[in-house]
Amino acid sequence: MSAFLDALRARLGEPGLLVGGDLSAFETDWRKRYPGRALAVARPATTEEVAAVLQLCQAHRVAVVPQGGNTGLVGGSTPDDSGQQLVLSLSRMKRLREIDVANASLTAEAGCVLADVQAAAAGAGMLFPLSLAAEGSCTLGGNLATNAGGTQVLRYGNARELCLGLEVVTAAGDVWQGLSGLRKDNTGYDLRDLFIGSEGTLGIITAATMKLYPVPKERLTALAACNSPDDAVNLLRLARDRAGDALTGFEVMNRASLALVARELPQLAQPLDAAAWTVLLELSDAESAEHARQVFEGLLEAAFEAGIVQDAAMAQSLQQARDFWHLRESIPLAQAQAGLNIKHDIALPVSAIPGFVAEMDAALARYLPGIEVIDFGHLGDGNLHYNVQAPAGVAPAAFLAAHEAPINAMVYDAVQRRGGSISAEHGIGRLKREELAQRKDPTALALMQSIKRALDPLGLLNPGRLV
Amino acid sequence: MSAFLDALRARLGEPGLLVGGDLSAFETDWRKRYPGRALAVARPATTEEVAAVLQLCQAHRVAVVPQGGNTGLVGGSTPDDSGQQLVLSLSRMKRLREIDVANASLTAEAGCVLADVQAAAAGAGMLFPLSLAAEGSCTLGGNLATNAGGTQVLRYGNARELCLGLEVVTAAGDVWQGLSGLRKDNTGYDLRDLFIGSEGTLGIITAATMKLYPVPKERLTALAACNSPDDAVNLLRLARDRAGDALTGFEVMNRASLALVARELPQLAQPLDAAAWTVLLELSDAESAEHARQVFEGLLEAAFEAGIVQDAAMAQSLQQARDFWHLRESIPLAQAQAGLNIKHDIALPVSAIPGFVAEMDAALARYLPGIEVIDFGHLGDGNLHYNVQAPAGVAPAAFLAAHEAPINAMVYDAVQRRGGSISAEHGIGRLKREELAQRKDPTALALMQSIKRALDPLGLLNPGRLV
Repeated sequence: MSAFLDALRARLGEPGLLVGGDLSAFETDWRKRYPGRALAVARPATTEEVAAVLQLCQAHRVAVVPQGGNTGLVGGSTPDDSGQQLVLSLSRMKRLREIDVANASLTAEAGCVLADVQAAAAGAGMLFPLSLAAEGSCTLGGNLATNAGGTQVLRYGNARELCLGLEVVTAAGDVWQGLSGLRKDNTGYDLRDLFIGSEGTLGIITAATMKLYPVPKERLTALAACNSPDDAVNLLRLARDRAGDALTGFEVMNRASLALVARELPQLAQPLDAAAWTVLLELSDAESAEHARQVFEGLLEAAFEAGIVQDAAMAQSLQQARDFWHLRESIPLAQAQAGLNIKHDIALPVSAIPGFVAEMDAALARYLPGIEVIDFGHLGDGNLHYNVQAPAGVAPAAFLAAHEAPINAMVYDAVQRRGGSISAEHGIGRLKREELAQRKDPTALALMQSIKRALDPLGLLNPGRLV
Repeated sequence: MSAFLDALRARLGEPGLLVGGDLSAFETDWRKRYPGRALAVARPATTEEVAAVLQLCQAHRVAVVPQGGNTGLVGGSTPDDSGQQLVLSLSRMKRLREIDVANASLTAEAGCVLADVQAAAAGAGMLFPLSLAAEGSCTLGGNLATNAGGTQVLRYGNARELCLGLEVVTAAGDVWQGLSGLRKDNTGYDLRDLFIGSEGTLGIITAATMKLYPVPKERLTALAACNSPDDAVNLLRLARDRAGDALTGFEVMNRASLALVARELPQLAQPLDAAAWTVLLELSDAESAEHARQVFEGLLEAAFEAGIVQDAAMAQSLQQARDFWHLRESIPLAQAQAGLNIKHDIALPVSAIPGFVAEMDAALARYLPGIEVIDFGHLGDGNLHYNVQAPAGVAPAAFLAAHEAPINAMVYDAVQRRGGSISAEHGIGRLKREELAQRKDPTALALMQSIKRALDPLGLLNPGRLV
């Protein structure tokens, strides 16, 4: 290995290679669930340096674990404990290469922090809509490698839908120059979408061209109380029908999740009385504040008349809108304060969600009386975070030890029966690799393995993840 | 071969296999540019039958040419002249499997004609927005295999963006059951997008789940006269900024293309005086007819004030709106009447289009005085049909023989210098395969070949196309 490290050092220089010392920031994920030990950390500053690193890894048969902001939830970006894997951090590749306002696009390097990309777009009078809790530290490369979702997917799509082109270094250290500001290009296989979401197992994304959008003239937020998931689904349909693409957010929170927030974070105001499902709606208007308010009020009025909303509150200020969103976003924090729980990041056809929730809530209550389901998420995308917490008085750790596997099986079986996904936006990584192998269509798994062998024949790219 | 055909007949029955007789409808494309000779035509009625065909082809090493409506423009769906290739027609697989209004999705088999899919969605009170000239005979499977574009891409995207899930039969005859109504699914490589646009070279799409949208309350159309491509690009930006996603169409026609229509199809009314670029705008409003008109009038007023539009006409009836679209869509017909021409289906960053047009128009005028550039297309997507016609008095055939290769080189070089695409929406097929091999990024070509070998190791799927 010392020949390998010497060659790396010669190519990358001192700031480009970390060996020994405290590497823990690169070796362990932020939740400290996947501690590992790295051979070294390479920090190339250019695409050519990334290519050189991959060429050396291939020559010396060294496995590579690519890493962006290291904010993932599934163990995709930290090394195993062998001490033999090289962490390839893209954090020094943070150049904004181009903003093309007339083409509504922006090209940035993989290591750019998401919030910086958003700010660059805003500086040019445009919107880069990808937005998620980790945006202050996650990177564009990581967002693409994991096909990140977040709060604006309903209108603008995942990272995949926002991407026009990629620059990628292959396992062999070749550079695919696929940056492109094109909206249409039918010249061959869709390599871009193959790399997006491949979690660093097929190649290293070094830069990307992303779509920009006009900044909405007004953004309005409301909370609405629904008596059932069915009513929430009907409200979604009504909102899409009346507001079209102005509907940019449609989040749900079940009764238990807001009760948990009330217990753990009593300082947060809850404007509505408890309801089966509370919906957070956001409308972004291309026209004017006045028009936005008129559409929103018309929508809520129609929903009242149809009996699918029992109560509603429209944010009267930007601060109140932020507070509504904060309420929604504080659920994971309240959960963390309450202790360990069993998390599920599932997707279902929207039409299947009420049936799933009714069946699963009942099944879990039978399975273990007093069990708590903290159920919230992006209903507009069919994506629920369906998390399960110990009954009051039961120690979370003991609960997980005894019940995690059977509860996962119950939830994932019910998801699978309805054509759902066991990972809507968090990815597979190490956490769900075994589960995927058991549940994914066998032909799909075989295709994935063929592609992996074709693009990474030595199996050096992020081994043990995803596939 | 007779053992192969016997086995096929035994599996598919009489209606499922055509051997001998007049197979010309399957052997030749509709423009009669790619005549071929088929070993036979298999017409399976179910996914299982498609799988059986592929298994037999693999066992007997027979090449397969998948075919939908056979409306392509690049020679992708007809056999070569060897008489050794099996045409696999999906035309009997035309079942609409499901419409899920609450999930805004529809599942249909590959052989469904696009217009029938549109009608099925309309029957359920929803919109299936994919729309193109061949919609009366092209099929959903062909639309996906070629990632079809059309007139609504600006707002709703290509076939790719409209697809949620696929059912695919692999080269080995395995079925990947990837039908899915999910908006989010991060469980592994994006196989769906790999098959979409692969022109039948990686697998056979047998069914798809597609997105549906609310039907707009009102759709308004206008023509606007711009003094230059620059003004048209500015108008696009203004329209997106003011109308957001309500802008569903933004087509351009240069002066020469409308003059050609006036010559060849004098019966068509042309509401505006000749202008450098005439723009067709379409707005689809989620709210009301009144609101639509108000937004559109406000937009045109602002465009007049900014000096980027010289004249405009808003359609006053549905019939007039159809006439405006018909004017745009009749350009290819007028070209066909005028005789052969050199076609280019190119994409550029929108910001690069004015520079490209200025440079290319001038270069062609220098190259051959009197040459005519018929330039029209989907400016909102950066997609131009930049077609070149012989000077008046020069025979089209002689013009093509002498000038097609050098003019292609001039156009494609200029496209490539600006990061453009030589095939925006028509695909590669046989027509542009050599051109692609010369112009595509070499790493991308190598990746495509690796994937082709991995998924079709015997090279039996649509050989000689695309890759």
